[in-house]
Amino acid sequence: MNPEQDEKPTIEATSDTSTNDLLQHVIAELEAGNSESIAQRLEETHPAEVADLLESMTPEQRSDLWETVPVTQEAEVLSHLGDEVRASIIDEMEDGELIAAAESMAPEDLVEMLDELPTDISTRLMDALEQDHRNRLEAILNYEEDSAGRLMSSDVISVREDVSIAVVLRWLRRHKDLPSHTDSLMVTDDSGLYLGKLDLADVITGDPDAEVAQLMQTDAVAVKATMSELDVARLFERRDLISVAVLDDNSHLLGRITVDDIVDVIREESDRVLLNSAGLSEEEDLFAPVLPSARRRGLWLGINLITIFAAAWVIGRFEEALDKFVALAVLMPVVASMGGIAGSQTLTLTIRGIALNQIASANLRWLMIKEISVGAVNGLVWSVIVAFVSYLWFENIGIALILAFAMMLNLLAAAFAGIAIPLLLDRWNIDPALSGAVVLTTVTDVIGFLSFLGLATFFLL
Amino acid sequence: MNPEQDEKPTIEATSDTSTNDLLQHVIAELEAGNSESIAQRLEETHPAEVADLLESMTPEQRSDLWETVPVTQEAEVLSHLGDEVRASIIDEMEDGELIAAAESMAPEDLVEMLDELPTDISTRLMDALEQDHRNRLEAILNYEEDSAGRLMSSDVISVREDVSIAVVLRWLRRHKDLPSHTDSLMVTDDSGLYLGKLDLADVITGDPDAEVAQLMQTDAVAVKATMSELDVARLFERRDLISVAVLDDNSHLLGRITVDDIVDVIREESDRVLLNSAGLSEEEDLFAPVLPSARRRGLWLGINLITIFAAAWVIGRFEEALDKFVALAVLMPVVASMGGIAGSQTLTLTIRGIALNQIASANLRWLMIKEISVGAVNGLVWSVIVAFVSYLWFENIGIALILAFAMMLNLLAAAFAGIAIPLLLDRWNIDPALSGAVVLTTVTDVIGFLSFLGLATFFLL
Repeated sequence: MNPEQDEKPTIEATSDTSTNDLLQHVIAELEAGNSESIAQRLEETHPAEVADLLESMTPEQRSDLWETVPVTQEAEVLSHLGDEVRASIIDEMEDGELIAAAESMAPEDLVEMLDELPTDISTRLMDALEQDHRNRLEAILNYEEDSAGRLMSSDVISVREDVSIAVVLRWLRRHKDLPSHTDSLMVTDDSGLYLGKLDLADVITGDPDAEVAQLMQTDAVAVKATMSELDVARLFERRDLISVAVLDDNSHLLGRITVDDIVDVIREESDRVLLNSAGLSEEEDLFAPVLPSARRRGLWLGINLITIFAAAWVIGRFEEALDKFVALAVLMPVVASMGGIAGSQTLTLTIRGIALNQIASANLRWLMIKEISVGAVNGLVWSVIVAFVSYLWFENIGIALILAFAMMLNLLAAAFAGIAIPLLLDRWNIDPALSGAVVLTTVTDVIGFLSFLGLATFFLL
Repeated sequence: MNPEQDEKPTIEATSDTSTNDLLQHVIAELEAGNSESIAQRLEETHPAEVADLLESMTPEQRSDLWETVPVTQEAEVLSHLGDEVRASIIDEMEDGELIAAAESMAPEDLVEMLDELPTDISTRLMDALEQDHRNRLEAILNYEEDSAGRLMSSDVISVREDVSIAVVLRWLRRHKDLPSHTDSLMVTDDSGLYLGKLDLADVITGDPDAEVAQLMQTDAVAVKATMSELDVARLFERRDLISVAVLDDNSHLLGRITVDDIVDVIREESDRVLLNSAGLSEEEDLFAPVLPSARRRGLWLGINLITIFAAAWVIGRFEEALDKFVALAVLMPVVASMGGIAGSQTLTLTIRGIALNQIASANLRWLMIKEISVGAVNGLVWSVIVAFVSYLWFENIGIALILAFAMMLNLLAAAFAGIAIPLLLDRWNIDPALSGAVVLTTVTDVIGFLSFLGLATFFLL
């Protein structure tokens, strides 16, 4: 590193291409065995980007690269990794190396890692930690997973309300390094009762002789440690917060949550919804080995197989009709598919509405009528077109009319199911993002085949 | 509001239930016509939460509630609304009311709204604004949509590197209100060239006699105004940033982007991926009227109808086989569906991998082999089970074997297509999140029906 370059701020033109270039470059160097040049490169790379590199590599490249990660970076890189990738790397670490990394991690990052470790290793790790570190860890472990208590850091500066700003400034100056992302100080009384917060900006711009009580914000929002992390995230989004105080049930200050962790919560939640919709775990590692991947995905295929056989069983009830009119076999997927697609639109909107808390009993009836009307309008339009095409194809007016009528029925059922299924799943505490689509497809397949083949059996045989 | 309550900080126990309670309460009050009690309630509610309320209402409730929103809140509420809901509300506003609201909006919020307005209204609005406001607006409009330039605020404090911290402190104290989310000051030279940033925390804790140059971070990351907002968001995530400087091509400071806007970018991107996967626009309003909703969704149904007819056409090629063995009609959806499900798992992982920049030419071959192997393992396992069940059902060993073999083939094709389709779409600049699933399902349907019915025709007829 030459001193001249050091003077210039880093400008990221498009981090996108540069990451991919870096990945290509590092893999090429790995393959060439230039571990020294890689180690030097990694020293200049942010730990979060080293974690990105590891996540974009095959198992073999990954363990090669990990060996060149400087020991001083290991803790930070580990805390930036996704659970599954981290587990694969921890597997390869020696106990001593792991304990050294754990000791330099912030307790709230370490807790996340502990959850993933085999019990014997995590127990040994806990024992190896210093008493103070272990106590803080145990305090965090007492909070439920995905609660505010797990997200918070206890590294927070609190001041009394009856001191002057000048005193606060002097005290801060002695403190030297403020905890990262400190945008405000918390105001508490002697017992630790939370009274409000004092923005750092107000400390700077305020009259030095003023008391904290005069400048602090008493209406600043705070959260309880038991609040779910998703609710905390919604609050950050709505109020444009940088940090928020976390309190116990008696309004005593426990710590604070900062926006950088909230950004991760939002990203993880978005990954979860996306991956769960395909029956994948939110931590699914793109570069996981074949057998574990196959096992995890196989389960989902098995669940779906049951629903497909249910649909096949329905078809099997109408062998006579299928035997007589082969056109029925050709056209039946049209009815089922169109229902599935229309239903998944309603389902997706409803799942999002539930997540955003937009659906209340006061607007549910309106919503149901609206979605069924949308289904009716599209059912009408596309039924006419489908009937017309199928009449041109098979020249059987009976089959064309039955096809149109069955599709209409299925689109109405799909609209109803698209709202009802996620609401029911949510009430039963089953995540609609995970299982909504399977249940919905079963309904639209069964009703699609049943209505089309049933009507054909009734009218044409 | 009694003064005692005012003294207590707001503790959000579970914002979740409280929002929903608020929604129920407001709707009940609306129906009872108690607009005064609602207006009072809204005064105490954060504008972002008022926006949430509006988004959770039927069109009629929405326009009733909007009438009770205090005029002073209108601008802020508008800037928190989603595009589609905002458009429906702007439709109902008088020109004067709209101009008044626009005048009090920050230019970067106003730009977003201008994009949505009919040209004649936006021109009139631009003309009505003060010269200064209009100039700032036009400067922002010059940047491409979804670029850093559109996100940035020009409300930024910059200091020279050769002044002392004491001078900076004195200057800030005169300034009184710092721009919101100011965690650091930007350091520039006389020409506006960006040199680095100075954390507010360092201003407080640093030696008052030190020069800015000694305490500023010269290696702080900065972005160009042309960088895409998604790249900026990834940078915030990786580096845990609160704010970042935005520069022009010559490294002159233009403004800054703060994390609160990044949180919105991440949320919008997550909504986009979720809603696009069902062929919905990311701004789709759950409570939009029937006809516009039906029209938008109808387009997607029409696109899918074409692909379903393609699959039906394939089935139609095998009328002879279907005529002879009705079991083929019963079992053919099994082959197509299992391919579709396995393929969508690979597709989802690949789409996410592309978004996270994890896929490079150096690991693509490994990934392809891995996904096809996963398909092979699951194909083998489930083929055996499916063959066994179908043999029990139809007691035809030929059909059972062909079913197993066709399913195996389709799962391999699905794995290949699940990687190849999104990569090709991405190369052609078509969003894989929007059209990947349609293309994939077409492939797995066609290959599923073709292999099963084709093999049956070849071996059984």
